[in-house]
Amino acid sequence: MSLLVVGSVALDTVETPFGRVEEALGGSATFFSAAASLFHPVQVVAVVGSDYPLAQLDFLRRRGVDLSGIAREEGESFRWSGIYSYDLNSRETLETRLGVFEHFKPEIPPALRGAEWVFLGNIDPELQGHVLDQMEAPRLVACDTMNLWIDIRREALLRLLPKVNLLLVNDAEARQLSGEHNLLRAARWIQAHGTELVIVKKGEHGAILFMPDAVFFAPGYPLEEVFDPTGAGDAFAGGFMGYVASAGSTDPEELRRAMMYGSALGSFAVERFGVERLVSLHTGEVLERVAAFRAMTAFECKQDVEAHAG
Amino acid sequence: MSLLVVGSVALDTVETPFGRVEEALGGSATFFSAAASLFHPVQVVAVVGSDYPLAQLDFLRRRGVDLSGIAREEGESFRWSGIYSYDLNSRETLETRLGVFEHFKPEIPPALRGAEWVFLGNIDPELQGHVLDQMEAPRLVACDTMNLWIDIRREALLRLLPKVNLLLVNDAEARQLSGEHNLLRAARWIQAHGTELVIVKKGEHGAILFMPDAVFFAPGYPLEEVFDPTGAGDAFAGGFMGYVASAGSTDPEELRRAMMYGSALGSFAVERFGVERLVSLHTGEVLERVAAFRAMTAFECKQDVEAHAG
Repeated sequence: MSLLVVGSVALDTVETPFGRVEEALGGSATFFSAAASLFHPVQVVAVVGSDYPLAQLDFLRRRGVDLSGIAREEGESFRWSGIYSYDLNSRETLETRLGVFEHFKPEIPPALRGAEWVFLGNIDPELQGHVLDQMEAPRLVACDTMNLWIDIRREALLRLLPKVNLLLVNDAEARQLSGEHNLLRAARWIQAHGTELVIVKKGEHGAILFMPDAVFFAPGYPLEEVFDPTGAGDAFAGGFMGYVASAGSTDPEELRRAMMYGSALGSFAVERFGVERLVSLHTGEVLERVAAFRAMTAFECKQDVEAHAG
Repeated sequence: MSLLVVGSVALDTVETPFGRVEEALGGSATFFSAAASLFHPVQVVAVVGSDYPLAQLDFLRRRGVDLSGIAREEGESFRWSGIYSYDLNSRETLETRLGVFEHFKPEIPPALRGAEWVFLGNIDPELQGHVLDQMEAPRLVACDTMNLWIDIRREALLRLLPKVNLLLVNDAEARQLSGEHNLLRAARWIQAHGTELVIVKKGEHGAILFMPDAVFFAPGYPLEEVFDPTGAGDAFAGGFMGYVASAGSTDPEELRRAMMYGSALGSFAVERFGVERLVSLHTGEVLERVAAFRAMTAFECKQDVEAHAG
């Protein structure tokens, strides 16, 4: 029944056209757990430096997130700083200070090795593989990655693909990894390299789940204001995996529904800076947004449409 | 019961990464009628030069398209020539020769003024208004436009907005017209300027219908190959309006379904050069694609999702 996330717990300094936050809670494991814990207990494996404001993670503990797998090491925590363009569609990294994260080699505590549901946050694919080597028999392993690893750890990433069940990438990453511009071909390429399920995230345009025999679309939730896109992808993954773990099933019907939880959580994440909106979020609000998605996509086919011609 | 389209009937020379066609059938009224006529008879008002290969439009006549409103004038037909980028996401116009289209002032034959359903193809908004002045009491007037008119005929376009029921624009046009980057705000801006329904077309990302109290998403159909995006917007409009005319209703449920016919026709249009795919298309193929859209978007909400926290 366990849902394990391995990733970063960081401090983000972010500037968007709407403001700036300094040293706010960030990192893939933080966003993921904040989202997933609305639906299922989560266990985190990560590393922080001796300067990390661990008390700020108490909201996660109150939601049943097990933080005992966060190692605290002498040194600086992982810090990232970036600035977004006026339309929030691109961002520039101003500074990355890895700190203790540089030598992070995730050791999974024995009690967590039996987890059924695993999310490998965006870290070196060698380390993602190292995590999987320690796991007993997970039912679904989902994996994130980024342009950096596609560039400099391509072989390790390709070795990882057959070992994970689901790869989550954005459209640019899908294209870069596969060398295919067309997203359907890109997803088929990834599936042909061993990963059965592929989710391509397209920001405001939603996300597409490629299954072996079917494709499913989740729209992006139409927001009048987007404050900070940081962490939206990890919140998506958290909504998706939290729902799947809660449903206890990877049936296609449940995966489709999980896409809506992912898209809902991604949309909440960007409404405020950092994890702020996820901290205040209630499960009922998520269910409302999922119901809104249904209203925005549901239609019935009419099989008696009169063929005028042809 | 009539469905009237006023627009261009042109000759297109198009180059894409996949090939080139010269002097192929083109123009908004051509793509629109080719799509709409699968579901409903269409009446075309347009102008062509003495050099237009009218016999090539016979496939429309066979589908019940009334071409008697196409005036044939001494001079050259409207010719457009363009080249698409490698990813088909942008195009450069190489040449526009308006020919007899330059002085096109659409006069609606008396027999067509009672049309219930009207599509104003992309022409000068002054002329679109001139068409509407001649119409008796249409039930639904849909209107297309382009960046050029937003630039140089802004006042005429703003005067037109309260007179049309539906504006079809792409995302860039919605932003340019409204001055709002956010698409939800852009659509609300257009609605506040008098047009009740707004469809924002996003190419491969699908299209969004903004109604007064609801929003509806149609995904783009995932294609492995896109040959030529020319005319996709007019084919979308044709699928949408052809379905609405066939259903004889503007109920929200029908408009939602119409979005899927629009998206389906847009996706067929790009599978071959020019109108080629629409010529060979059968109604049954459209119904299959609409059913596929349903399979790609349908999910049931589960109201018993266990709230783990929050």
